[in-house]
Amino acid sequence: MSLTKTLTKTSAKTKENNNLQTETVITIDEKIKKLRELMSEKNLDAYIINGTDPHSSEYVCPRWQTRQYISGFTGSAGIVVITLKEALIWADSRYFIQCEEQIKGTEFKMKRINGLNAEKISDFLKSLGSSAKIGTSADTITVKKINEYKTSGINVIPMEDLLYNIWTDRPEIPAGAVLKLTDKLCGESVSSKISRIRNKMTESGASCTLISSLDDIAWILNLRGYDIKYCPLFIAYLFIDNKESILFTDKNRFRKIKTDNLPYKIKNYDDVYKKLSGLKKSSIYLNPDKTNMSLLDFINTEDVKIIYGNDFSEEFKACKNSIEIEGMVEAHIQDGASIVNFLSELYSEPDGYTELSVAALLQKHRECSIYYLGPSFGTISAYKEHGAIVHYNADKNSDKTITGNGLLILDSGGHSRMGTTDITMTLPFGKPTNEQKKDYTLVLKGHLALSALIFPEGTNGYQLDAVAHRFLWQNGLDYFHGTGHGVGCRLNVHEGPQRISSHISATNTALKPGMVISNEPGVYKEGKHGIRIENLIYVTEAFKTEFGKFLKFNTLTCCPYEKKLIVKEMLTEQEIKQINNYHTWVYKTLKDIVDKNALKYLKEATLPL
Amino acid sequence: MSLTKTLTKTSAKTKENNNLQTETVITIDEKIKKLRELMSEKNLDAYIINGTDPHSSEYVCPRWQTRQYISGFTGSAGIVVITLKEALIWADSRYFIQCEEQIKGTEFKMKRINGLNAEKISDFLKSLGSSAKIGTSADTITVKKINEYKTSGINVIPMEDLLYNIWTDRPEIPAGAVLKLTDKLCGESVSSKISRIRNKMTESGASCTLISSLDDIAWILNLRGYDIKYCPLFIAYLFIDNKESILFTDKNRFRKIKTDNLPYKIKNYDDVYKKLSGLKKSSIYLNPDKTNMSLLDFINTEDVKIIYGNDFSEEFKACKNSIEIEGMVEAHIQDGASIVNFLSELYSEPDGYTELSVAALLQKHRECSIYYLGPSFGTISAYKEHGAIVHYNADKNSDKTITGNGLLILDSGGHSRMGTTDITMTLPFGKPTNEQKKDYTLVLKGHLALSALIFPEGTNGYQLDAVAHRFLWQNGLDYFHGTGHGVGCRLNVHEGPQRISSHISATNTALKPGMVISNEPGVYKEGKHGIRIENLIYVTEAFKTEFGKFLKFNTLTCCPYEKKLIVKEMLTEQEIKQINNYHTWVYKTLKDIVDKNALKYLKEATLPL
Repeated sequence: MSLTKTLTKTSAKTKENNNLQTETVITIDEKIKKLRELMSEKNLDAYIINGTDPHSSEYVCPRWQTRQYISGFTGSAGIVVITLKEALIWADSRYFIQCEEQIKGTEFKMKRINGLNAEKISDFLKSLGSSAKIGTSADTITVKKINEYKTSGINVIPMEDLLYNIWTDRPEIPAGAVLKLTDKLCGESVSSKISRIRNKMTESGASCTLISSLDDIAWILNLRGYDIKYCPLFIAYLFIDNKESILFTDKNRFRKIKTDNLPYKIKNYDDVYKKLSGLKKSSIYLNPDKTNMSLLDFINTEDVKIIYGNDFSEEFKACKNSIEIEGMVEAHIQDGASIVNFLSELYSEPDGYTELSVAALLQKHRECSIYYLGPSFGTISAYKEHGAIVHYNADKNSDKTITGNGLLILDSGGHSRMGTTDITMTLPFGKPTNEQKKDYTLVLKGHLALSALIFPEGTNGYQLDAVAHRFLWQNGLDYFHGTGHGVGCRLNVHEGPQRISSHISATNTALKPGMVISNEPGVYKEGKHGIRIENLIYVTEAFKTEFGKFLKFNTLTCCPYEKKLIVKEMLTEQEIKQINNYHTWVYKTLKDIVDKNALKYLKEATLPL
Repeated sequence: MSLTKTLTKTSAKTKENNNLQTETVITIDEKIKKLRELMSEKNLDAYIINGTDPHSSEYVCPRWQTRQYISGFTGSAGIVVITLKEALIWADSRYFIQCEEQIKGTEFKMKRINGLNAEKISDFLKSLGSSAKIGTSADTITVKKINEYKTSGINVIPMEDLLYNIWTDRPEIPAGAVLKLTDKLCGESVSSKISRIRNKMTESGASCTLISSLDDIAWILNLRGYDIKYCPLFIAYLFIDNKESILFTDKNRFRKIKTDNLPYKIKNYDDVYKKLSGLKKSSIYLNPDKTNMSLLDFINTEDVKIIYGNDFSEEFKACKNSIEIEGMVEAHIQDGASIVNFLSELYSEPDGYTELSVAALLQKHRECSIYYLGPSFGTISAYKEHGAIVHYNADKNSDKTITGNGLLILDSGGHSRMGTTDITMTLPFGKPTNEQKKDYTLVLKGHLALSALIFPEGTNGYQLDAVAHRFLWQNGLDYFHGTGHGVGCRLNVHEGPQRISSHISATNTALKPGMVISNEPGVYKEGKHGIRIENLIYVTEAFKTEFGKFLKFNTLTCCPYEKKLIVKEMLTEQEIKQINNYHTWVYKTLKDIVDKNALKYLKEATLPL
């Protein structure tokens, strides 16, 4: 594995706010051909492109949108495998339709990661034979992933990024200014956070740690950035030992900030390699799920012991402190007001809107809030049968007009000065059918059951998933995405380690006070409609009895359910009471801050069932 | 590791039906002293006694009741660790009180496996230092357990059984006759079962398998035995390759059976070692959770590849065929009649009974059934505060008289010609308090929710546990045992791989049609009362929709709930309907087979709420 090139490449001068990819002049098939030439030079039978960045981020800045560059597919997940004869892309069920559409006319063929006719990437790679040489960029493959391949008997060789020689107009690493948040706004000082990490480090027997995860770095240092769309992050590594902390990122980012009294040093991004190669007689703590193979190659493992585990800051960050919770509450109240203003305007005259213009209207109302910073992810606005495509993305060609009787799934969220929001509404237009109302009510029953649940300390998310599913199951319905994902505070809208899902995640984390999580059951009927009801909730203490400590959820999202879609007869008295109590709270909370002309809508929408 | 001694020992001549342990004349402390002398000879710092047999059975025959021999503690689980200075026994919460009582006056000290002030055995063993030599009997420690110790950095050395030289009047390996069941009664021939195992064996790349699990052997060969109390099993190993099957067990067991046409050979128990050491150029499939280290030592791993996995028969056995389900249904109807006869007699004149005499009365009524073979486990009969001790075992000293106002937990089951039963009733005497009724109703709501649940194919037991817990949680109550365990058909009352529990078992099995499982939520209030409601249910197909195949439970147990303990106001209409429907079925099913004088009780007990 040659890393000299990697160093040269990442040392290249960076450009600020490079959010747009310059248009390439070569076609997809030409790119594949060039890649194959390089593969032949290196005697490779296959080359894998993960489409992530050196920090294993979910969303990546243009420089590392390699999947999109090579295939044209713009989805947020997927794995590309190029062999000398085939060009394949594995997509998940959210993207089957979109991916097929976007690779049309190229050599690419789509494979399914899940669902019917799914094919395992590992099975395909194995079919190449045990002596096959398979390459991938060392910068963007994690230690964990390489070990998984190894365990499956697949020989994947981390190496230089072959796209480097093909993608001539590749965007640089962004290097925009960072924003320093006050300790007061964050609820904890940087020194205190670093000190907590040092304690955990010592407990685990490590003398230092290198953190690759961008949202962990932003959280620890009370900094935010603008490198990645939707994510207030900046590209960096953070090294911590018992003597010092070093942030590896473009120094220019701090040009407007006093750096004299910061409890960490700042060195350039690529200096991280020097730091790692200089480590002697120490033990370094690394997250195998976030650490890329290039980093690993610079550690002299004869002299340095590696201890693997989740980043200590992951759980610290997940358990929001009281200031962060206050911020999240306030962010949701402001967001609720924006949404009610939006709904009032939309419902007053719904004719003529399209999926995209509805999303734009919501965005316009969010932007009226002085605290609003921007969207926390790309809004999903999906009408009628589009709603059945779980992660449908409307574009100019698909943009459906809101007309007739139908349901609109509207999944959106924002960052404000105080926190991050994520809400899915299912909005009825025209006269909803009995089937739509029954489906909505079944989804709502699961959503209500989860949000009203009390559970003992130590309960894991996988234990609670069925609580949200069971009313649907009882009626032969189901949904195949998770019920809840963690949400950051003015950070990533998808944040670990907690989640509510039937799938046992590797981290297997108990739900703890301060954790924010989404509650979003749904049901999707192909060719008909999609329904999803999503509020954010957070864990707090309920009470203590002789049986131990019990926890409950408080709801953050402040927005009415759609009474037009609720079949009251399908609800228990307790469920009716729960909805009425929630609506009373929504009304009281928003009545003085919504626009005057939205008050009528708010009042009606929150009247008792 | 010396195995010569092990061979000599297990070759010792065996004795039939040796169910009673001859009284020892040496005290517990003298046994510990002798053991320490042997440990010193071998330079051991500690010696572990697991208390299981070479087949990792849950219940063991007297020969392997080593935990009880060394400590005096008679519980069904626990780990003994003897060091040169300490004698420790780890017990779980079911046995805290019993264990403390039984080790009183000896050098033993109890440690808690779970609950408050729990201490990990592994932490203790680690505290002995990394160079500590820790021994244990190779016969009774599994490959999996040894690997777990190794992974935790604990050096446990499998060796000869040190008790062999102390326990002079140790019972022999039982060798009673086996009972051959007809293929018709079992629903599948032995040849068919072996053929299914061979297919799986080939699929997994193995050329042979050795099965240690006693209930798997009994199921595969359509044989039953009498070696272990409550379990219709016999001590044996079963070897299967593509040419032959060999049962290793005392040949005398077959003296009354024609053996000419059996699809397997019979060799003596100890011949298994010869077979394993003779294996050449093959690959053997072994269950690491059942295979003991003595067996492993006889395999020449340079020439024989070992493939580890769960026994193939485990899931075959768990998914009962239609004949087995029919048998289980019939067994539960007969058992239901016996129980109703019992309840009718008990309630007509409850005064004067004790915990033990109530259990005896139930046993008497079960024995009236011509199909009844014997109890499937030791009956738990626990009155008032005894009910809060989850696995309380009444004895002459503790035996409480049924008097005043109180609840009796009665957990019992039987084997009949057709199947195995397991039921827990909570019986009220005198006037139940509001707290008792509320607690019973909350437990019942969870029990009803689970039994009425519909769930998609592929659902695991850990997903469903909260369904049975949530009404209790909502009221600050909880229980800390599993919600459901698998049950065998005229086999072990605890059978894997399925279970319903918050704990993710290593096997992580989806619930499949034909699986029988218990549904037994409860609540236990120290010093007051215990409540548990247990019925057996089995998985069957519900329906198929565009969202996939859905499964449901059918109830096997046929016995009324205790209406006197139900608070109707706490139930939903649907729950009331569910209870009334169940009671109507119980009445219709039992009315013609219960004793004439029990009919009045049956009728009243099953009247609509």
